[in-house]
Amino acid sequence: MIIVADNLRITLPAISRAVELLDPEPIRQLVIACRNAGAGFIDINSGPLSNHPEEKMIFLVNTVQEAVDLPIVLDTANPKAMAAGLAACRQPATINGVSLEPEKLKRTLPLARQHDCDIIGYLLGPDGHVPADAAGRMENAVTLFNQLQSAGISPKRIIIDPVVAPLAWQDGNRQDMAVLEVIRTLPDLLGAPVRTIAGLSNLTTGAPAPDARCRYQKAFTPMLAAAGIGMILMNVLDQEVMRTARTCRRITDGTIFTWQ
Amino acid sequence: MIIVADNLRITLPAISRAVELLDPEPIRQLVIACRNAGAGFIDINSGPLSNHPEEKMIFLVNTVQEAVDLPIVLDTANPKAMAAGLAACRQPATINGVSLEPEKLKRTLPLARQHDCDIIGYLLGPDGHVPADAAGRMENAVTLFNQLQSAGISPKRIIIDPVVAPLAWQDGNRQDMAVLEVIRTLPDLLGAPVRTIAGLSNLTTGAPAPDARCRYQKAFTPMLAAAGIGMILMNVLDQEVMRTARTCRRITDGTIFTWQ
Repeated sequence: MIIVADNLRITLPAISRAVELLDPEPIRQLVIACRNAGAGFIDINSGPLSNHPEEKMIFLVNTVQEAVDLPIVLDTANPKAMAAGLAACRQPATINGVSLEPEKLKRTLPLARQHDCDIIGYLLGPDGHVPADAAGRMENAVTLFNQLQSAGISPKRIIIDPVVAPLAWQDGNRQDMAVLEVIRTLPDLLGAPVRTIAGLSNLTTGAPAPDARCRYQKAFTPMLAAAGIGMILMNVLDQEVMRTARTCRRITDGTIFTWQ
Repeated sequence: MIIVADNLRITLPAISRAVELLDPEPIRQLVIACRNAGAGFIDINSGPLSNHPEEKMIFLVNTVQEAVDLPIVLDTANPKAMAAGLAACRQPATINGVSLEPEKLKRTLPLARQHDCDIIGYLLGPDGHVPADAAGRMENAVTLFNQLQSAGISPKRIIIDPVVAPLAWQDGNRQDMAVLEVIRTLPDLLGAPVRTIAGLSNLTTGAPAPDARCRYQKAFTPMLAAAGIGMILMNVLDQEVMRTARTCRRITDGTIFTWQ
């Protein structure tokens, strides 16, 4: 189970300002802290970068890869920024992400093919909505897997995100049980090993307090781990949730167990 | 997910003394604390009760059921104590437990039939050992289920315990992943809904410190919950693990979600 840091987000005022000023220091400090906390990948959530998208994305990628020796996940809806970011990454990058929405497929698949990089596929339908039950998510998984393969993307490049539902949604908890079922069932369904990722912060959208957020994330992380999730996208600076993730790995990863 | 308190154990010096003196107060206080902590059942682990087994078991049962209005699980290898306890219980009791070991089957099945009570079936082989993998545990489940039914015990009375392995055992963590698989798979395997229970304290046998015990129990409880466990036998006075169990219930029990 690999931990992907979701901490580098343009929505943080300090990061937004650093990108505007092309000042690497706040970004450097943040990603070094993420690596020290146990991140295996860094997700760069740059937003659309409407002005100078290429320049800003190249600045972000270079700042991250000069600070830490970790692979990068590129999370932007701007195809120019994505293309520039993919070209700037020294290690193989991951595109975050694509779904059955036609516009996303159109703008993302050529880049994935061209750079032969990993790509996260969300199990949203063509309308951008996620089906409430496991069957609907699995149907989307089969369709997306086939579409990506038809577009020339190797199955081993595909990382499926079954879309963790906010608990506060109507039926959110039932949807999250369906998410676990999808993670467990996908390899059988697709007839091949398939990589998976889950975004943990989605679970607690709208949580009334940090304590509630932490408590539910700590309870859901072991459920994801036992279901066989490959990667968790999360706030790696939350020490309690990270500790839970490390504890889970000692139970689920099949390595020789040690208490520490 | 029902929480069964494993706190009432004859191995505690205060409880051993109370049973010797037939002094109800320490037992009363303990089980009231367990109920207040959220226990749904009380397990009476009386040990073999070699002297005056009937008298002592009746004292234990009466003390518990006068203190709290919770169903009782009777955990003794002494058939006289078991028979006296079953007869003394006002609410339907649960026998803890039986396995494929011939001696246990012989002494327990007549009591289970006579009292038409629930019975916990451990997935140990006839030799008293638990198979290391999921397949072996499932084979034992099928055999045990059939033997109990042949002996006239209704399937709805049977509660399967797949035997949580100590993490410190060789391959303990892999066995515990097999335990989760067994819990998930049993209803399909037996072709019927089947009740399950897991003993959480087994997981951390030999833990070097209370912190390690708590950490691993907090990580494994959500895994059990997501696998669909029906009952967890645990120390209900460990507030952190109990809090985790309550949090899990809000995710897994399919009821309407609320944060608190």
